[in-house]
Amino acid sequence: MRVVVALGGNALSPAGGTGSVEEMRAALTETAAALADLVGAGTSLVLTHGNGPQVGRLLLQQELAAGEVPPMPMDVCGALSQGQVGYLVAQALDNALRRRQLDARVLSLVTQVVVDGRDPAFRRPSKPVGPSYDRPAAQEISQASGHVFAIQPDGRWRRVVASPRPLRFVEEAPLNALVDSGHVVVAAGGGGVPVVEHHGQLRGVEAVIDKDRTAALLALAVGADVLLVLTGVDRVQVGFGTPSARALQQLTVAEARELLAAGEFPEGSMGPKIEACVSFVEAGGRAAIGALSQAADVLAGRAGTTILPS
Amino acid sequence: MRVVVALGGNALSPAGGTGSVEEMRAALTETAAALADLVGAGTSLVLTHGNGPQVGRLLLQQELAAGEVPPMPMDVCGALSQGQVGYLVAQALDNALRRRQLDARVLSLVTQVVVDGRDPAFRRPSKPVGPSYDRPAAQEISQASGHVFAIQPDGRWRRVVASPRPLRFVEEAPLNALVDSGHVVVAAGGGGVPVVEHHGQLRGVEAVIDKDRTAALLALAVGADVLLVLTGVDRVQVGFGTPSARALQQLTVAEARELLAAGEFPEGSMGPKIEACVSFVEAGGRAAIGALSQAADVLAGRAGTTILPS
Repeated sequence: MRVVVALGGNALSPAGGTGSVEEMRAALTETAAALADLVGAGTSLVLTHGNGPQVGRLLLQQELAAGEVPPMPMDVCGALSQGQVGYLVAQALDNALRRRQLDARVLSLVTQVVVDGRDPAFRRPSKPVGPSYDRPAAQEISQASGHVFAIQPDGRWRRVVASPRPLRFVEEAPLNALVDSGHVVVAAGGGGVPVVEHHGQLRGVEAVIDKDRTAALLALAVGADVLLVLTGVDRVQVGFGTPSARALQQLTVAEARELLAAGEFPEGSMGPKIEACVSFVEAGGRAAIGALSQAADVLAGRAGTTILPS
Repeated sequence: MRVVVALGGNALSPAGGTGSVEEMRAALTETAAALADLVGAGTSLVLTHGNGPQVGRLLLQQELAAGEVPPMPMDVCGALSQGQVGYLVAQALDNALRRRQLDARVLSLVTQVVVDGRDPAFRRPSKPVGPSYDRPAAQEISQASGHVFAIQPDGRWRRVVASPRPLRFVEEAPLNALVDSGHVVVAAGGGGVPVVEHHGQLRGVEAVIDKDRTAALLALAVGADVLLVLTGVDRVQVGFGTPSARALQQLTVAEARELLAAGEFPEGSMGPKIEACVSFVEAGGRAAIGALSQAADVLAGRAGTTILPS
């Protein structure tokens, strides 16, 4: 069985941490143990992951050093983070596989994802990236760099970039050759490096692709049987944070669409995860959302929330 | 014919440049044109590259931002640079292949290389990395970080790390599966991310592996017919910079060993390139050193310096 697993930020480093490599290694050791259990059970595993905190720290470093080193654009920042996270994930998982005496190795890829240069998202940059600032600091940076800033729910200002829809993987052919070889593949970290195609030529763009959308595309591209979105919560909830909160064991595509339309799931967190599952189930696949620590049970339908065809 | 190409720093960005992405893209467009000619001629291409200037800039950014973002160790810096350079190389080469209507795609890998934790290089850190400082600044950083600094030929001080011998690729099996699939592979950038194996577990180390040594290992690992070390000079020279300077069209392994022993080739530049070629030729392969702009002619033996068995 071929399974695409999408890992959230907490799988890579603890929320509110400093972002040190020691923190990342500790978080990844636990993550890797859960994933190695899937591989041990005979799953062909393709992994993808977020990169928000990692790119945020790269952007902050670049800004603080901008007087001496030219900052890189968002596409290159995404690629930097794919190298960093891809290495740490591959090493942690490889070690977990070795501990279980499993022969599969892990390979992390630098992955470009084609987006449409006319995607309306480019006219409405909405995805916050990097550190937050007070208004004067944001204005100053904006004037110097041309970056767009937007006020956030906490009253602070952050740079926002476009979050266009992922259309296809530049490396789809070699990616599939590799997945077919039986090794674990880490691909499309941070939603993939966003590129546009113009007259047959690729060019990176200042954008961030939603990693859950890319995970659904990845599941299609590699012919996965299952898309598993692993996160910090045990099950999808309705009425989250209210007295009538209810954890869902199952959710049909039709129910999911209704709840999405009703604004039940926040845009920056559970919303895209459910959308990703809905799109993959509609394309004929299986999908579930659940806790990383229960990965094998979520895959088996004994834990988490399974998204069912209507 | 399977060819491993090792690219020097000038292929990625001009010496003495600012390190901006525009500079890198411009340099890589030329590099990619030369490489696409090889692919167009039917060569199965595996690429590797240096990362000195790129890691140097990452280290400087990390140092300037150290008060707000924890700096990453050298292994993670290597992985960051593999993501960055791997992306830009893959995109430039992919574009060049598309212009020639060639179907092969390009995939960049995050690659770990195992070194021996008891390699004597760890007791004598010698490879300079990152920016240069005057003595008081170097002392201050050294006391705060524990990093080792050494005086350089220009009288300035730079951090030095170990440069252990590469032993094998962690990802050798999936790497080979991928190369066999007929796509162009970019691997082991910057000499590969250095790791040691201890009780069967991998751990990154503070080191930099010489990229030419890793290129020779890569050529063996993928069963290459030819190792091509492409650089800024047309041919290997003896008496470099003297009135009796002489460019060599051919060089036997025995001659190369004598000239290496006589200190004819500088350690930080031509020396490791010739050593890499010697070791690959001794293992039964073909090897040549020459100008990137003449890649196809160097491969055909019409340009550059061919290293011959004795």
